[in-house]
Amino acid sequence: MARIAVVAGDGIGPEVVAEARKVIDAVLPGVEATEYDLGAARYHRTGEVLPDSVLAELGGHDAILLGAVGDPTVPPGVLERGLLLKLRFAFDQYVNLRPSRLWPGVPGPLATVKPGEVDLVVVREGTEGLYAGAGGSLHRDTPAEVATEESLNTRHGVERVIRDAFARAGRRERRKVTLVHKTNVLTHAGSLWARAFAAVAAEHPDVTTEYQHVDAAAMFLVTQPQRYDVVVTDNLFGDILTDIAAAVTGGIGLAASGCINPAGTYPSMFEPVHGSAPDIAGKGVADPVAAVLSAALLLDQLGHADAAARVTAAVGAELAGRTPGVPLRTAEVGDRLAGYAVA
Amino acid sequence: MARIAVVAGDGIGPEVVAEARKVIDAVLPGVEATEYDLGAARYHRTGEVLPDSVLAELGGHDAILLGAVGDPTVPPGVLERGLLLKLRFAFDQYVNLRPSRLWPGVPGPLATVKPGEVDLVVVREGTEGLYAGAGGSLHRDTPAEVATEESLNTRHGVERVIRDAFARAGRRERRKVTLVHKTNVLTHAGSLWARAFAAVAAEHPDVTTEYQHVDAAAMFLVTQPQRYDVVVTDNLFGDILTDIAAAVTGGIGLAASGCINPAGTYPSMFEPVHGSAPDIAGKGVADPVAAVLSAALLLDQLGHADAAARVTAAVGAELAGRTPGVPLRTAEVGDRLAGYAVA
Ligand SMILES: CC(C)[C@H](C(=O)O)[C@@H](O)C(=O)O
Ligand SMILES: CC(C)[C@H](C(=O)O)[C@@H](O)C(=O)O
Repeated sequence: MARIAVVAGDGIGPEVVAEARKVIDAVLPGVEATEYDLGAARYHRTGEVLPDSVLAELGGHDAILLGAVGDPTVPPGVLERGLLLKLRFAFDQYVNLRPSRLWPGVPGPLATVKPGEVDLVVVREGTEGLYAGAGGSLHRDTPAEVATEESLNTRHGVERVIRDAFARAGRRERRKVTLVHKTNVLTHAGSLWARAFAAVAAEHPDVTTEYQHVDAAAMFLVTQPQRYDVVVTDNLFGDILTDIAAAVTGGIGLAASGCINPAGTYPSMFEPVHGSAPDIAGKGVADPVAAVLSAALLLDQLGHADAAARVTAAVGAELAGRTPGVPLRTAEVGDRLAGYAVA
Repeated sequence: MARIAVVAGDGIGPEVVAEARKVIDAVLPGVEATEYDLGAARYHRTGEVLPDSVLAELGGHDAILLGAVGDPTVPPGVLERGLLLKLRFAFDQYVNLRPSRLWPGVPGPLATVKPGEVDLVVVREGTEGLYAGAGGSLHRDTPAEVATEESLNTRHGVERVIRDAFARAGRRERRKVTLVHKTNVLTHAGSLWARAFAAVAAEHPDVTTEYQHVDAAAMFLVTQPQRYDVVVTDNLFGDILTDIAAAVTGGIGLAASGCINPAGTYPSMFEPVHGSAPDIAGKGVADPVAAVLSAALLLDQLGHADAAARVTAAVGAELAGRTPGVPLRTAEVGDRLAGYAVA
């Protein structure tokens, strides 16, 4: 039976993760879960972000379920670089998978799009680009200060994530992959992405392809999100585009994500796109749907496609039954989802 | 009297620029305009992108009015780096000014926002960041290829654009500046931006400030664009955010932009955000509003605030009078705008 590590984290993290576990237990009884205390709370208590021994232990699991880490009281970058990105890089989670659907029952912000019309997935590169941590500064705090950030892109890293995007597109109905970059300005990295994309596309004559500059894609995600099926893009562009995709499909409260190591050499990690939301933490009002959908991605990754499909369908039933404006209770939503999933 | 250089460019560029000139002539008779033939057409004919002699001549004008350059037949980067960005950098146009308003009469895509509620301006840095052209590649076209793009940020460059944003905010009603960056990942550049922002903010106690990560800002531009007044951000983030802002306010067909050298040491340049739109070129159906609003920014920059205000008001009248779905004719719109502006 699967052994998963659970990093509930800060703020609403523990609240939504509890419901995700409830649903996992319902559809796949017997999953062994070990909790790890990481995040802002531990950092404040001990100064530790991610001890090597904990990293090694996490690495021994089949998957990681993460709630949310972070808090305004921690300096920017400490937990992001030291924990979240560290895990993505250490476990070579090069596919950052972010599906977006406009579910029936969810009031999206767009007047022009009907529920059911948006069903896209962004395959965001997870181990390279501007997230590599290559950069520095000189003459800090003087008028002569200069600061750099470097985007590092390898054929190895780019090609493998593009391959993953094409493989996913091949299993979907529309079989379309959109490459998003900024080839007209970022000519070196853009050319590498475009050439790797063309090479992989040539092996998949059954998949339709298109290219868009990131600014155009950001615009079309607002005006015509229906046009996208699979979008593949670099780490930073993917960060931005997935938040737009979430916004047009009802908000990051519903957005799931998986940081996936497709080779399975290290565990993949699943987390809602939303943060720790300290303003509503502890009140039992956070929407656990994003965490539960992330759990569905986890189940799918571990080979339990059927359990994953049941969880996803349960979310569909839950959302279709909601009345906009009626406040929700985290635990009640989890109970309902678990019920739907086994019905 | 003002002397302006006109680069009509490719595709619909000449069509929309003709209307912008019509409107300028109406509100400020006697402006001297010299046309420069630059863009895809010249590149194909002569292989030239921007000869030094032309660059020098352009530099002798009070301002530049640009239509659109580019065409799918030109390799990515050639005209962008060789012409558009070259002008922005050579003329030290460090303020890339992009206002977005949801005009009454314009059907925006958002169900949640009413006309008149959005009135924001993005002050995008125009001479640094990932646009610096610092990058390269090794082992090209082999499995070992690596490609880099470097974001270069100086205290000099960052502080001056932030100063401009605060100065603009001080002249607006809400007096609010939002800094957008990604300080939690791009820690070096992010820290420089955040420290420069804090220093300038301290000199403007009358201006409200806030900070948002770029992914959050991309989301909030969709869900709550009303919340923004002045947004200041780096070159690449500004590229993406301004297209989202355009999308939520009716599309890039209405989006104006100015590449401004506030010191006046070189001419500023004004151009619609849209491109050359080869698919509709030559048909006389392109909307000239973005070009005309760019002309209003030009007039304002040259000290003709009154003429600029009349052009902006004319656009308001034009848009309020439109019936969604009724096709427009470029020249007729220009005629109407010129008429409204002098009425
Ligand atoms: C918290 C941050 C490091 C992270 C990212 O930028 O990847 C987040 O925004 C996300 O999208 O998962
Ligand atoms: C054409 C391109 C170089 C340009 C940019 O990226 O700045 C355009 O997208 C813009 O926003 O003006």
